[in-house]
Amino acid sequence: MTDEPLRYDLWIEDAFRSVVRRALAYTAAKGLPGDHHFYITFRTAASGVRIPAYLKAQHPLEMTIVLQFKFDDLAVDDGGFSVTLSFKGRRENLYVPLAAVTSFADPSVNFGLQFKINAQGEVQAGAGGQIPDIKPAGPETLAPKPTTETPPKPLSAPSSTPGQVIALDQFRKK
Amino acid sequence: MTDEPLRYDLWIEDAFRSVVRRALAYTAAKGLPGDHHFYITFRTAASGVRIPAYLKAQHPLEMTIVLQFKFDDLAVDDGGFSVTLSFKGRRENLYVPLAAVTSFADPSVNFGLQFKINAQGEVQAGAGGQIPDIKPAGPETLAPKPTTETPPKPLSAPSSTPGQVIALDQFRKK
Repeated sequence: MTDEPLRYDLWIEDAFRSVVRRALAYTAAKGLPGDHHFYITFRTAASGVRIPAYLKAQHPLEMTIVLQFKFDDLAVDDGGFSVTLSFKGRRENLYVPLAAVTSFADPSVNFGLQFKINAQGEVQAGAGGQIPDIKPAGPETLAPKPTTETPPKPLSAPSSTPGQVIALDQFRKK
Repeated sequence: MTDEPLRYDLWIEDAFRSVVRRALAYTAAKGLPGDHHFYITFRTAASGVRIPAYLKAQHPLEMTIVLQFKFDDLAVDDGGFSVTLSFKGRRENLYVPLAAVTSFADPSVNFGLQFKINAQGEVQAGAGGQIPDIKPAGPETLAPKPTTETPPKPLSAPSSTPGQVIALDQFRKK
């Protein structure tokens, strides 16, 4: 619980979600440029997520999708994105609100963002309120087109390498 | 020069500017809450900056203002903010575009953001182009109401302390 009105942590989180949105919007309009590809992890039980029941059953907490070789119908709206992916040969259309996204990575440039805030909508930027510190189950990677590459490991501290994964914990007050 | 279309670095910078805007907008509407106060450094020669000529002459590169005890008429629009401050007893109204801001700090919670991108408008997110790596002259602090407190030193790497200064260099590819 906090009555802190200047919620830099939540604002940074909102701001980072806008970066995810920009990357997806670019890709929806023009396709993935160069070697870019995205690993996106989201909370399957979060409000607004639309995925087939069997995927939800297999991934009750979180699910990671990969936008790389085989995806279609990527569309981005103000609140999230939809995309069609193959899951063991079945084409499925998913809708994922940005607020449900817990991490985003573009391994081609070693860039990543990690979100920790509850995606259920209990916490709104600037509104204050309880921040359940839900630890996501370690990523259950579900790559439509598995590659030998693994997503970069989230770092809690930047390294000196160009590009990196930013954990929102960095901005969170204890 | 870069033809990289996914400019995460610029997008993060845009996103961080939106955080500065939120803090200022809150303060314009409700005043500074608690011990919060802001150190804002901006490039005095950047496009859209409006400051008296004698201040520009004294601070040809950068100027740091403090919003703490004595400021009035803070107003925020989409592009920037205006505020009235005292400079050796003279009340002056300044207008600072967000794009001209090179750093923002709220020492009360040890929070800070540092921007490096040229504020002249040559670089637009997503547009590619040259990024002049202008090193700002070390902050010429001009505190309307000097205190013994100094702004937190920008860190290039996060520490384990809650809150911190984020340098945009972290996100910049070499």
